[in-house]
Amino acid sequence: MDASEFRRLGHELIDWIAAYRERLETLPVMSQVKPGEVAARFPAAPPQAGGGAAAALAALDRDLLDGITHWTHPSFFAYFPSNASYGSILGDLACAGLGAQGMSWQTSPAATELEQVVMGWLRQLVGLPDAFTGVVQDSASSSTLVALLCARERASGFAQVRGGLQGEAAPLTVYASDQAHSSVDKAALLAGYGKANLRHLATDDAHALRVDLLEAAIAEDRAAGRRPCAVVATVGTTGTTAVDPIAAVAEVARRHGLWLHVDAALAGTAMALPECRVHWAGIEGADSLVFNPHKWMGIGFDFSAYFVRDPQHLVRVMGTDPSYLRTAQDGQVANLRDWGIPLGRRFRALKGYVHLVDEGVAGLQARLRRDLEHARWLAAQVDATPGWERLAPVPFQTVVLRHVKEGLDEAALAAHNLAIAAAVNGSGKAYLTPSVLKGRQTLRVSCGSATTERRHVEAVWAALRRAATAA
Amino acid sequence: MDASEFRRLGHELIDWIAAYRERLETLPVMSQVKPGEVAARFPAAPPQAGGGAAAALAALDRDLLDGITHWTHPSFFAYFPSNASYGSILGDLACAGLGAQGMSWQTSPAATELEQVVMGWLRQLVGLPDAFTGVVQDSASSSTLVALLCARERASGFAQVRGGLQGEAAPLTVYASDQAHSSVDKAALLAGYGKANLRHLATDDAHALRVDLLEAAIAEDRAAGRRPCAVVATVGTTGTTAVDPIAAVAEVARRHGLWLHVDAALAGTAMALPECRVHWAGIEGADSLVFNPHKWMGIGFDFSAYFVRDPQHLVRVMGTDPSYLRTAQDGQVANLRDWGIPLGRRFRALKGYVHLVDEGVAGLQARLRRDLEHARWLAAQVDATPGWERLAPVPFQTVVLRHVKEGLDEAALAAHNLAIAAAVNGSGKAYLTPSVLKGRQTLRVSCGSATTERRHVEAVWAALRRAATAA
Repeated sequence: MDASEFRRLGHELIDWIAAYRERLETLPVMSQVKPGEVAARFPAAPPQAGGGAAAALAALDRDLLDGITHWTHPSFFAYFPSNASYGSILGDLACAGLGAQGMSWQTSPAATELEQVVMGWLRQLVGLPDAFTGVVQDSASSSTLVALLCARERASGFAQVRGGLQGEAAPLTVYASDQAHSSVDKAALLAGYGKANLRHLATDDAHALRVDLLEAAIAEDRAAGRRPCAVVATVGTTGTTAVDPIAAVAEVARRHGLWLHVDAALAGTAMALPECRVHWAGIEGADSLVFNPHKWMGIGFDFSAYFVRDPQHLVRVMGTDPSYLRTAQDGQVANLRDWGIPLGRRFRALKGYVHLVDEGVAGLQARLRRDLEHARWLAAQVDATPGWERLAPVPFQTVVLRHVKEGLDEAALAAHNLAIAAAVNGSGKAYLTPSVLKGRQTLRVSCGSATTERRHVEAVWAALRRAATAA
Repeated sequence: MDASEFRRLGHELIDWIAAYRERLETLPVMSQVKPGEVAARFPAAPPQAGGGAAAALAALDRDLLDGITHWTHPSFFAYFPSNASYGSILGDLACAGLGAQGMSWQTSPAATELEQVVMGWLRQLVGLPDAFTGVVQDSASSSTLVALLCARERASGFAQVRGGLQGEAAPLTVYASDQAHSSVDKAALLAGYGKANLRHLATDDAHALRVDLLEAAIAEDRAAGRRPCAVVATVGTTGTTAVDPIAAVAEVARRHGLWLHVDAALAGTAMALPECRVHWAGIEGADSLVFNPHKWMGIGFDFSAYFVRDPQHLVRVMGTDPSYLRTAQDGQVANLRDWGIPLGRRFRALKGYVHLVDEGVAGLQARLRRDLEHARWLAAQVDATPGWERLAPVPFQTVVLRHVKEGLDEAALAAHNLAIAAAVNGSGKAYLTPSVLKGRQTLRVSCGSATTERRHVEAVWAALRRAATAA
């Protein structure tokens, strides 16, 4: 493809994206294709002759679009919202066009320095003290893995330069609530702690970590000769957006020398609202925290914001220094390859930059407040409607509910609510996520798509009630 | 930003990218800015009011471009090439515009299925048997970490569901040559093996792994009660593109029950040429291998191709199954979140798809052969020119050389060659990477930017000679 074909196809694709976004509401939210249906439309072998870019882009409408579940649809209420604003798309396009690779400062100084600028903006936006330094990771899963690796090395006095975890006499232990995200388990297992050394603590009625149980578990492990190493606290759990008591957990972590990692993947964005910051009071006591601007905030995936109090510790654990990566500026600059797992790094700051400049703090705050209000409205409907039950507080934008029918036991209630979810999702009119909360089948309605208006929340509520009657 | 502003700014940005690519040759390859210079151009706090997208994009020229090191420049000879074709840019733009997140099949079936199609294409393109299944990872570093985690769990009988590495009596050991990439060390350390259990084996005169030393190291570890677990072999090392003897290493790995991971990050792309496949004869014996289509092949960063013989093992090690991630299609489909570390997944297959359809197998092969010829030409010049020394064979597109001056010891020669590199890179006319090979300072000239013509190779060679005279 030459530059003129790129211009022509690029303009067409920009127009296609704009038209796609404009008609998004008319498309089924969850893809309705069957397994194998999309793959069967493509040849099994790569083409010998080139020149097919225009045809490849034509496949977007013909072969791919019905296989897309539309995460930016106004009736996307599943998982957590994952917006990708127009500004973010443009920033990401600039990133792709430049093709810069910011593994070291020298390999594109602007990539490192704009990332530092944007992470500074995000830090202020969510009210974090300037004792924290930020870096972009791809996901909260990777961020939490990085945190538990850093914790492991701090607690073991850098065992990695000796025998690793294999040379340690007393096992290191990790603590989290039974509502912590699956990525905490994954990170603990990948980091080598072992499932036997990961404690899932029971939660209170609001599904938050109980500090008394944390204290007790630490004491028990200590008494058994194990070494308490890290605690992961969550602000906004995946199941219900429950909020662990950060200040109290931080105090325990400090007293026992534990690494405190805070997973605020969804709810970190809410901290752009001063009225929400009560939910992470004490956050200054964290050693690391992650939140995902690629969720509710509107920067396109992948852009996870990882903040640490001691970036030099990150470098000690993750850094390498082979001769072919040395540059004249080492020592004066941050080489962000040493701040995470991958060596190569996209210029992801660009999409964050364009998004934030386009939306502005005031615009973001207004949108977030609208979404909180959507959730409060829905919660009030649930509370006021016989046969419906709300299963958790609503501190943010997610409402956890279920339909109850007299005479059904838990198993039958679970089947009934799964049928409701299947009916709503299968209709293509809205998409939500069923989940299990302490043995009870729930339906999660998570507001926050940038295009969601009150009428969409009203529509999903109406769809739920219709499905409950039919099921 | 509304759709009409997106169309307007999007068209402008497409044109900007095309114009950038057209004038790339006139820009200094390596950015010449000083540390802090770019960051100082941006406000320290995020803007309160929005609407600044047009101004943000204007910053590309005004505030960012001189801070970019241009990886797609025709005179980029540093590291390994990292192309990002026009086709790839368009595919990536479609990915950003759709904003789909393919963590599970259901969350965008097309993302999973096109990835399977494209990985099947890549498998055939590089001549791998159909016993391998592919998945996209972000980088070779992450792929190698995934490989060493899978190796750890196979060798330990899934210690992660017990006490992890902390519960193991006899340490697991890992083997690689002294030319293996720093990401192998990083992966071994992060996976918890510990530096004391990582063996760097001396290499032969061609800088390839010596199988006799591998055998001896395994025997020594066995005798000492340790458990040999994994060997990482490299096809195309970073220092010199040396090729470890895969068939022989595979035979040793098979006999001793070791996991064989092959790092072909750069050179995997060369296997699109049948005449290059001799360099990984025996590859069918690997348990896993990685190559980076985001390097020489031309798919924009990040797109690392990870192939495994047993994807179910990957799922056993990396998979999680919380209730909120269960879908109706589980068991019938691949949920690619379980094939790597991050949960969320971009629709990266799109950029691979558009790139491959646009370039075609024949087009790619012609370009790769041109680049191999560039390297052979440069190697011949070095060999024929007094005062210059070539330090390694040239199986692919990288030439490793240095200038020698009579009477200089190794330290003085190192300083002399570093001065040559600094002069060339500081001129902005070309960009190459100094590296150290077994105590000798080298200069790596790595061909393979898609826009590099013979005249650019001639120019960097002339620049090197001029710098050597002046230094």
